[in-house]
Amino acid sequence: MTLALSAVLHTSFEDAVERTRTVLADQGFGVLTEIDMRATLHSKIGVEMEDYLILGACNPPLAHRAVGVDRRIGLLLPCNVVVRRDPADAATILVEAMNPDVMVEVTGEPGLRPVAAEASAKLRAALTTLAADPAAT
Amino acid sequence: MTLALSAVLHTSFEDAVERTRTVLADQGFGVLTEIDMRATLHSKIGVEMEDYLILGACNPPLAHRAVGVDRRIGLLLPCNVVVRRDPADAATILVEAMNPDVMVEVTGEPGLRPVAAEASAKLRAALTTLAADPAAT
Repeated sequence: MTLALSAVLHTSFEDAVERTRTVLADQGFGVLTEIDMRATLHSKIGVEMEDYLILGACNPPLAHRAVGVDRRIGLLLPCNVVVRRDPADAATILVEAMNPDVMVEVTGEPGLRPVAAEASAKLRAALTTLAADPAAT
Repeated sequence: MTLALSAVLHTSFEDAVERTRTVLADQGFGVLTEIDMRATLHSKIGVEMEDYLILGACNPPLAHRAVGVDRRIGLLLPCNVVVRRDPADAATILVEAMNPDVMVEVTGEPGLRPVAAEASAKLRAALTTLAADPAAT
């Protein structure tokens, strides 16, 4: 199983974040939470790292179906989408979404399979749109 | 592998949330995000469910070690701690933390094992304290 669904962009970090929010919204995912890992780790323990943002994306109808199947699924919600600068190439921005199949794998709950499949299709569509935008490559 | 580390409380929902935040803080976990699933699903799609809160808990030194081993690990951070009312018994509050061993399992990255083990020990200590509090049982 692949942990991350991903897209590679060549644009500014800020632009990548904005585009990511747009393609997620187009697929019905609202961003409920946002963690600036770079700022958090710098302020809490004084370390430096590259730009690294964790967006918590939630598609409410899919989330509702998931908790209907397994009440513990909030342990893996919202679906994280990480926008980060490639440590090996500062001109490259990586956008990675958690593969929803992880939910099926770690719960062992077959009832989550169709929900994960639908979430995967939507996230893959979002990332495909993101990577295909000529202004971002 | 167990998906959730858990504690069972018999107290008010609000008190359970407050106690959970305290025991997490005592183990070095700050709460970076908070999602009220009940309110979110009600406002977005009009459905009703029991009290259900997802806290995003982060121990900065452990998070720093984890991203040092596998840059993709932000897909599973912060560590979710769910505080929710038992649908089968309204007087019972369940507190469930994502088992950090999930990070090792889904990445297949043995370098994350000691980080996950330390995070697990801290979360188990937090939940043990929570469950042992005579005022909460």
